[in-house]
Amino acid sequence: MLKRYLLAPGPTPVPPEVLLSMAMPIIHHRSPDFLPVLDSAKKGLQWLFQTKNDVLILASTGTGGMVGAVNNFFNAGDKVLVVNGGKFGERWTKICQAYGLKVEDVVVEWGYSIKPAAVAAALKKDPEIKGVFVQATETSTGVYHDIEGLGKVIKNYPDTLFIVDAISALVAQDIRTDEWGIDIMVGGSQKGLMLPPGLAFVSVSEKAWKKGETSKMPKFYFNFKKERENLAKNQTNFTSAVTLIIGLNEAIKMLQKEGLENVFKRHAMLAHAAREAVKALGLGLYSKESPSNSVTAIEMPAGIDGQLVYKTLREKYGITGAGGQDKAKGKIYRLAHLGYADTFDVITGIAALEMVLKHMGHDVKLGTGVAKAQELLMA
Amino acid sequence: MLKRYLLAPGPTPVPPEVLLSMAMPIIHHRSPDFLPVLDSAKKGLQWLFQTKNDVLILASTGTGGMVGAVNNFFNAGDKVLVVNGGKFGERWTKICQAYGLKVEDVVVEWGYSIKPAAVAAALKKDPEIKGVFVQATETSTGVYHDIEGLGKVIKNYPDTLFIVDAISALVAQDIRTDEWGIDIMVGGSQKGLMLPPGLAFVSVSEKAWKKGETSKMPKFYFNFKKERENLAKNQTNFTSAVTLIIGLNEAIKMLQKEGLENVFKRHAMLAHAAREAVKALGLGLYSKESPSNSVTAIEMPAGIDGQLVYKTLREKYGITGAGGQDKAKGKIYRLAHLGYADTFDVITGIAALEMVLKHMGHDVKLGTGVAKAQELLMA
Repeated sequence: MLKRYLLAPGPTPVPPEVLLSMAMPIIHHRSPDFLPVLDSAKKGLQWLFQTKNDVLILASTGTGGMVGAVNNFFNAGDKVLVVNGGKFGERWTKICQAYGLKVEDVVVEWGYSIKPAAVAAALKKDPEIKGVFVQATETSTGVYHDIEGLGKVIKNYPDTLFIVDAISALVAQDIRTDEWGIDIMVGGSQKGLMLPPGLAFVSVSEKAWKKGETSKMPKFYFNFKKERENLAKNQTNFTSAVTLIIGLNEAIKMLQKEGLENVFKRHAMLAHAAREAVKALGLGLYSKESPSNSVTAIEMPAGIDGQLVYKTLREKYGITGAGGQDKAKGKIYRLAHLGYADTFDVITGIAALEMVLKHMGHDVKLGTGVAKAQELLMA
Repeated sequence: MLKRYLLAPGPTPVPPEVLLSMAMPIIHHRSPDFLPVLDSAKKGLQWLFQTKNDVLILASTGTGGMVGAVNNFFNAGDKVLVVNGGKFGERWTKICQAYGLKVEDVVVEWGYSIKPAAVAAALKKDPEIKGVFVQATETSTGVYHDIEGLGKVIKNYPDTLFIVDAISALVAQDIRTDEWGIDIMVGGSQKGLMLPPGLAFVSVSEKAWKKGETSKMPKFYFNFKKERENLAKNQTNFTSAVTLIIGLNEAIKMLQKEGLENVFKRHAMLAHAAREAVKALGLGLYSKESPSNSVTAIEMPAGIDGQLVYKTLREKYGITGAGGQDKAKGKIYRLAHLGYADTFDVITGIAALEMVLKHMGHDVKLGTGVAKAQELLMA
């Protein structure tokens, strides 16, 4: 028997309560049965996003929400800034370019976080910049960007939208949409929200809706104005992904029972313990600053291939984490502590890593990292 | 206790086997666990679509597949024909217009089916037409369009693509993608495939791929070239909706066990029985020709509001069918027999309709429609 553990930064494990709620017979999305379901989901998302804005619910992956954040609010030729410090920063750039926007990348070295002053300088230099795109957590490097700090900078530019991809940060980080002036924030189901993939969530500020009125890009599936009109009636523009939305309510119920502050604390503690365990093992963190609460990117020792670590963990111990992407491929192993995660997920992840590294010939004193995690996570 | 019955033309009931398969712990879409799952799904879809073409699997509703059928193969300004005989014909027109195509509607009166000769005449008149869009089943009117006949016409135009929305027809109708020369065919999960909403399927012919090379429209989420490259590696371009794809395999397994010919026969028999039962009750069919095997659109007697019939069936008997849309609103009630449907679904649907009509003051001899359905469905 090879028992399976999913410790990747998405998809993440789905709690049995949520799985069971989604195994109930289907209901019709245009029937009165569904209205309270969607009403509850939209209010729950507002609570989680810490916003009074509409939070749209789309039948797509998070990337669909990112596309909608571009094609509903901009026009071809618009100048925008993208904070590009990893694989998902690159995705913002690619989406904007696919739609004909003029992108200026604010390049951040992989493993480092954006300095808000760099964005302030870029905005000062070019007042025509219509939007600033960033990841809250850059999943490929395990870095959390300073969203609050960026918000303070962008607030000074009434014609510039602040767009945050919080797909892998939501639930794990305390992100205050309204307080920090985030105009558009994108989330996805299969990360902190503990759901299968298939839903995107997008909050939109009044400032963004107003700017969106001037957008002339072709749109149909990701037509946010129509989604907003439907949301007001507790509907979605096209067929709702009813099963996932039912699961969403169940997941939000679990988070609300725990309390938002406790949810953030739990993620912060798990992430802290994972990092300290990694250091106790003498390994380095790939995130040189501002490590995220969602995922820990662990540098592999010289001579150890991170992809082989990933593969061996899967095949020998049934543990699915994540390797590195692009330029980090082979150099790192990523361990997530995101969503339905507790103390023993971190301990399992660290214990297995110790065993595999030892197996691969690295000098490891078994239990060193585990003991550090235990110490930090003792209640 | 109000036991619930879902007899709407999508979402349709999901079999317990499928629900349970989707309640299993989640697996990672980029892990080796998922490759055989996607491989099996794509082969199963080719079997169901009766095609050797790639069948792409998208995390969206069927409408997302329709959008992709436009933005991957055409350019703004391209002239296209849309067979417009109902609410979903209108959707093709709206999507094409949203992307700047020049649409010529071949208008078909609601309740009637397209004459292939009308399309032949339009193509002959304007050889610049780059595509012909149609629904296989126009769900709003319950009409099945002659896809085979249209294929024979369009085959004569090597530069014209034939695009079929088979979202509500798939599984219920024998549609031969390759034999009939369908270039692009779109399906959805929540209809005949007996799954929750959230997946679109799109088959693409070599002719369409070739034409697609000239398409310059902005695309990112629905980028079919990238989906094709990923499909060859048993992946999807963005995070796969793993849970739904696992359910898809389970649903296809059920259909394969029954056999494709038997699946079509079952739908044809159920639809025939529903129509004959309706006639036995002295009611008219809204589909004046070529009624579909997916859904029966029933004309309401004078003085009976179809919306009230829908509402009363739901509230009094727990049965969710569908009313009419737009110009058919109030005039019809639609009873589906699609996907996970058998003899007793039709009998239940007809029996309840008899009871509600009698309740609303219409002169009904209880059991008349039911007896006709019984007679026709006796094994």
